Amino acid sequence: RVYLAQITWEPVPVLLSSGTGFSSYNGGGMNGTSTMMDFLEEPLPGVGTYEDFNTIDWVREKSRDRDRHREITNRSKESTWALLHSVSDAFSGWLLMLLVGLLAGSLAGLIDISAHWMTDLKEGVCLAGFWFNHEHCCWKSNTTFTDRDKCPEWKSWSQLILGHGEGAFAYILNYFMYVIWALMFSLLAVLLVKGFAPYACGSGIPEIKTILSGFIIRGYLGKWTLVIKTITLVLAVSSGLSLGKEGPLVHVACCCGNILCHLFTKYRKNEAKRREVLSAAAAAGVSVAFGAPIGGVLFSLEEVSYYFPLKTLWRSFFAALVAAFTLRSINPFGNSRLVLFYVEFHMPWHLLELVPFILLGIFGGLWGAFFIRSNIAWCRRRKTTRLGKYPVLEVLVVTAITAILAFPNEYTRMSTSELISELFNDCGILDSSKLCEYVNDFNSTKGDDLPDRAAGPGVYTAMWQLALALIMKVFITIFTFGMKVPSGLFIPSMAVGAIAGRLLGVAVEQLAFYHHDWAIFSGWCSPGADCITPGLYAMVGAAACLGGVTRMTVSLVVIMFELTGGLEYIVPLMAAAMTSKWVADAIGREGIYDAHIRLNGYPFLEAKEEFSHKTRAMDVMRPRKSDPALTVITQDTMTVEDVEAIVSSTTYSGYPVVVSRASQRLVGFVLRRDLIISIENARKKQDGIVSTSVICFTDYCPPLPPSSPSVLKLRSILDLSPFTVTDETPMEIVVDIFRKLGLRQCLVTHNGKLLGIITKKDVLKHIAQMANQDPESILFN
Amino acid sequence: RVYLAQITWEPVPVLLSSGTGFSSYNGGGMNGTSTMMDFLEEPLPGVGTYEDFNTIDWVREKSRDRDRHREITNRSKESTWALLHSVSDAFSGWLLMLLVGLLAGSLAGLIDISAHWMTDLKEGVCLAGFWFNHEHCCWKSNTTFTDRDKCPEWKSWSQLILGHGEGAFAYILNYFMYVIWALMFSLLAVLLVKGFAPYACGSGIPEIKTILSGFIIRGYLGKWTLVIKTITLVLAVSSGLSLGKEGPLVHVACCCGNILCHLFTKYRKNEAKRREVLSAAAAAGVSVAFGAPIGGVLFSLEEVSYYFPLKTLWRSFFAALVAAFTLRSINPFGNSRLVLFYVEFHMPWHLLELVPFILLGIFGGLWGAFFIRSNIAWCRRRKTTRLGKYPVLEVLVVTAITAILAFPNEYTRMSTSELISELFNDCGILDSSKLCEYVNDFNSTKGDDLPDRAAGPGVYTAMWQLALALIMKVFITIFTFGMKVPSGLFIPSMAVGAIAGRLLGVAVEQLAFYHHDWAIFSGWCSPGADCITPGLYAMVGAAACLGGVTRMTVSLVVIMFELTGGLEYIVPLMAAAMTSKWVADAIGREGIYDAHIRLNGYPFLEAKEEFSHKTRAMDVMRPRKSDPALTVITQDTMTVEDVEAIVSSTTYSGYPVVVSRASQRLVGFVLRRDLIISIENARKKQDGIVSTSVICFTDYCPPLPPSSPSVLKLRSILDLSPFTVTDETPMEIVVDIFRKLGLRQCLVTHNGKLLGIITKKDVLKHIAQMANQDPESILFN
Repeated sequence: RVYLAQITWEPVPVLLSSGTGFSSYNGGGMNGTSTMMDFLEEPLPGVGTYEDFNTIDWVREKSRDRDRHREITNRSKESTWALLHSVSDAFSGWLLMLLVGLLAGSLAGLIDISAHWMTDLKEGVCLAGFWFNHEHCCWKSNTTFTDRDKCPEWKSWSQLILGHGEGAFAYILNYFMYVIWALMFSLLAVLLVKGFAPYACGSGIPEIKTILSGFIIRGYLGKWTLVIKTITLVLAVSSGLSLGKEGPLVHVACCCGNILCHLFTKYRKNEAKRREVLSAAAAAGVSVAFGAPIGGVLFSLEEVSYYFPLKTLWRSFFAALVAAFTLRSINPFGNSRLVLFYVEFHMPWHLLELVPFILLGIFGGLWGAFFIRSNIAWCRRRKTTRLGKYPVLEVLVVTAITAILAFPNEYTRMSTSELISELFNDCGILDSSKLCEYVNDFNSTKGDDLPDRAAGPGVYTAMWQLALALIMKVFITIFTFGMKVPSGLFIPSMAVGAIAGRLLGVAVEQLAFYHHDWAIFSGWCSPGADCITPGLYAMVGAAACLGGVTRMTVSLVVIMFELTGGLEYIVPLMAAAMTSKWVADAIGREGIYDAHIRLNGYPFLEAKEEFSHKTRAMDVMRPRKSDPALTVITQDTMTVEDVEAIVSSTTYSGYPVVVSRASQRLVGFVLRRDLIISIENARKKQDGIVSTSVICFTDYCPPLPPSSPSVLKLRSILDLSPFTVTDETPMEIVVDIFRKLGLRQCLVTHNGKLLGIITKKDVLKHIAQMANQDPESILFN
Repeated sequence: RVYLAQITWEPVPVLLSSGTGFSSYNGGGMNGTSTMMDFLEEPLPGVGTYEDFNTIDWVREKSRDRDRHREITNRSKESTWALLHSVSDAFSGWLLMLLVGLLAGSLAGLIDISAHWMTDLKEGVCLAGFWFNHEHCCWKSNTTFTDRDKCPEWKSWSQLILGHGEGAFAYILNYFMYVIWALMFSLLAVLLVKGFAPYACGSGIPEIKTILSGFIIRGYLGKWTLVIKTITLVLAVSSGLSLGKEGPLVHVACCCGNILCHLFTKYRKNEAKRREVLSAAAAAGVSVAFGAPIGGVLFSLEEVSYYFPLKTLWRSFFAALVAAFTLRSINPFGNSRLVLFYVEFHMPWHLLELVPFILLGIFGGLWGAFFIRSNIAWCRRRKTTRLGKYPVLEVLVVTAITAILAFPNEYTRMSTSELISELFNDCGILDSSKLCEYVNDFNSTKGDDLPDRAAGPGVYTAMWQLALALIMKVFITIFTFGMKVPSGLFIPSMAVGAIAGRLLGVAVEQLAFYHHDWAIFSGWCSPGADCITPGLYAMVGAAACLGGVTRMTVSLVVIMFELTGGLEYIVPLMAAAMTSKWVADAIGREGIYDAHIRLNGYPFLEAKEEFSHKTRAMDVMRPRKSDPALTVITQDTMTVEDVEAIVSSTTYSGYPVVVSRASQRLVGFVLRRDLIISIENARKKQDGIVSTSVICFTDYCPPLPPSSPSVLKLRSILDLSPFTVTDETPMEIVVDIFRKLGLRQCLVTHNGKLLGIITKKDVLKHIAQMANQDPESILFN
């Protein structure tokens, strides 16, 4: 502290030292350390922070956290108060996780309840109280009524306005009200997003992946985004658009995490620590979206997180559990279940059924690849043409088309999660759904299990309606995902897969019923046996399609496992998820989130793909052979003027400091931002610093003639341990280093001489180039 | 290929080039690459391999695999055959996983069945066929008998020899036979281990952790170890010693993985790829040990693995599932359950019960810390005193003491896993176990649920016996773990916890029954309610103790979750596991496996602990200030003689190559092993290489006078991209680099000049020193 104060505030005694070149190495040990500590205490506001749309330096952030931790530990021996501070500091992470879990769980419950109510509002209103949704309204009802859903308290719009619900006019009125409500909801959603929080649109997962990898997007996880995203998510889901709330819930949970970080200095001030919290928050988000805490943690680990130490694993798990239990105590579905689609299958599956399951996997893979291509093409068109200038109109048009197409078909009219629930459901004896209208033969029923039966007319109608619903969902989802409203992909993808799976399941079931004498069915599917569970096919199909779109693997299977609770069905799910991933990967390597990251030009260094080309560091580094030499700063010969000229004539984010231009021996690396702030500060507050002052980065500056102006000592902002590689280093190793250590830049040397620099952007551009993509698509550093 | 052949086999045209210093950089690009490729095809046998008890270079191994992959991909475009080869290469990983799963599952089934039979053999024999175990024997029985366990076909030894099983003499005979069988089993086990496979002893997990981190212990995962470990594991478990089969099963599964690797070139030849397989095999091992595939994968991720890319996660999951299903089709427990201790609880727990759960956590943490300290102290004594010279005697004495103490108490006489099963079990109405001898009041019974009842005399007896069993297990386990027989820790730790938990559970249950008017019970534990489940307490206690000993967290909770299948009980388990870990960590940071790794001096760089000291690279590097300068090789001025002198006068595993001694500018790094092999080979096979030949590491060697002997070109063995850090780099960053990139050594520079070297051993020694441990305990490099 004293040392730095001397640098910054007092005139420097010029003749302080006459050290040789080596004295800085031999004797400078302790001084160097103390300087460094001072630097870490942030003597100048702004030094050590980042600009918006820049990548953080993981190594520096983690160092800073360790220094902080060290200091607290050291102080804790001094007094009881400091000891208490140290203990509370250690537990603040857990407290934060608890708060994140509670808040994320509560918000999820709120969203579930509101969305449920507003979805029903499109159809009618409850007379007992307008704040009741359809199901709740009929629960509260005291009067008796035959059909479960048709209690007298619940009035459809036609009943309310016309007094009756029958006839063509009533149908048209209901139709009209359905479309109007949908348009109102979506209009409100898009206006809110556009007006208050533009970052609240989309699923948010691509951006969260990028942020977790170290990128800074200020405001993306802020309080306005949280408020607006929560409100507009409810509106968007209620409007009946083909979108889900699962992805946005991850964004909402991450906003909670980010905002709650501000309560604790440890997390507020450190970008790396904050990202640990965000990883855990993402786990909590998926945990409440599906009621699958373990699946949520694995999703965070597999899909979104970048830096995931084991400590985070444990804390994520805690946050995910707290969130799940909070949601369960709110009990938004009224069934005391954590999970959205609770299913319980009883029948084992036969090995031969793996054939249809793998077919579903292939379908899922094809759908995934098709969806990603079309959606990216459409989003690119939106970005590049006039289409992108009318987001409100786009949302209204898509909502209108969706609502108009959806109303006549009961499977698209209901909310998508209800549809999936119904498709997953195994037909019991009392099910009144059309999908369960089988020809009953009560003589052959044994106990609870129903044998395979011939499909009744209801099933055939349902098949047609489902097929139409499938076609509609496939196309409308492509245009929906990426609009300026919050929109998740999980639910629409699962719906597509569940419909396809149910269709195939019923087909196989009927095949087995009518042709149980075929060789393939003999031995396991005799008449009167319950051998095919169409609901299981729907589930497998949902997993396959979700896998094809997102390329999740373990987390997908675990989420599905938590929905069913039976280890029994892991093998079908796994077979489908595996096939789907392979098929989709064969067509295009990227999942939807990675594709959107690339579309937006975010600097994301994919950890899953291995870089497999034979290039070396010298092929990637700047300057290229034909370029002018690397811009460097010398350690003790340049003046303030010289440095300012360099800074203003270039736009690099940092400059290597060398012993001398002739030797090109590397001393350290100085960041542009730190340099500008320090020089500005020194010019303002430090006496004798003028344009001709020499800037000195060494420990002991060489003596100058007495007439020359004071020396500006800047060793404190110099990074003395920049990462270097040799020019012969294969790029695969360089990519690995960037990925694993989270670097922003790396210097390149040859035989000990500084030769060039590789930044994260260079690496990303090079990867894009090698993959035959446009390297200019990487926009940020 | 051509280029290297030229170096190695033909006399070198001396006047080939007169390149300047820089030509090697500007023009040497392609040549350098081709040399590198040639090197990777291993032109000389031995170059690129490792010696026993050495650490691998992860970066080099991964580079080699990528080169291999690249070549196969390139060739696949040439012919159909090559394409097929490429596809089969891509799928070989999955095939290998399938095989590992099948083999591990089968072996686990075999071990389970044999151990079950042999455990029962200590008590008696089945007349219907000596190969039936007790349970199986009574299943096969056609005669009627009252007590479930007492079929006429099963004869205890006294019944067989004396003709009756009553009276003191029969008891003594049974006692005697029990001890004799135990001694025979353990004698056989220790003799087999000592004679055929010394690596088969212990749990194997510390060594597997070390191997996965990159260490080489030849034979540790070999076929002899597999065979002997499988056999002796059965013997050790059957002998009644206080040990489990879970840890050794991980070792057995890893042996399977390692042996099956030999079927595929991709895995046989690459140490890094092979370790991916071993990680997956470890997951399969835990999966079959507990019937918990997801828990197994998380165990592998959290506890044993070092390098765990996402690809491995997915494959591990596959292997774990295959293994679990193989085991289930073998069905060794005869209950169609995957899991060892299947439990199903029905009653929810009350928030106030968290107090006893946390008490159990504290007990678990204390037990864990106590066990680790005592066990390590005992093992150190065994290593350093004459005790270690009599392993057979030690095993016999411990077995005798265990058997003699165990027989009189029925809870220690039964196998430990049966004991745990019984303790976890919730008392039903029909349970005949002593633990369920409650005073029945059938009037208050509603349906399936039993209300809390007063304990009968059986329960009180059981309590005393369990308390004695607890004391015995606590002490005997300390002496058992680490003997020269296969021995796992999971089961004994869980038993200790389960006993303590059950005791506490019954106590709380009785307290609630007799004092349900107390304020703490009011509202949730009224008379006639079933509010306390002692089995759940046992389970929580087991988790706490296991957590205290191993410091597992997420994987522990997930394994327990898979045993119960109810998300409901995760919170109690988590509270206990968390408390246990905190309490144990407060006493000593290391888990039992880490403690054993340190005891054995293995070079394991812990990924969980952050290095938190302020030292810098210059404080750790060699040479120290007072030492002679670093041994270096110059790039083109040293003769074969000079280099041989350096190699024979030092024992370093590699040498930096510099431009010249004066400049100390780093060119690359050459490994001792490669250097020795190459020089030997050149002397033998290459004409004109004599002691005075100059060794040249550059691309174009400087011209020599015509009279001088030919130049030995060794650029092919030079690592042109050694990792460097500056002397000012904080050690926390250096440790991070070593850990994340898996380095063996790292060079230290100052202002571009080579200054010293840091090896993995130096880092480990430094960490030990900073933690006030003996740095000389690190034995290997």
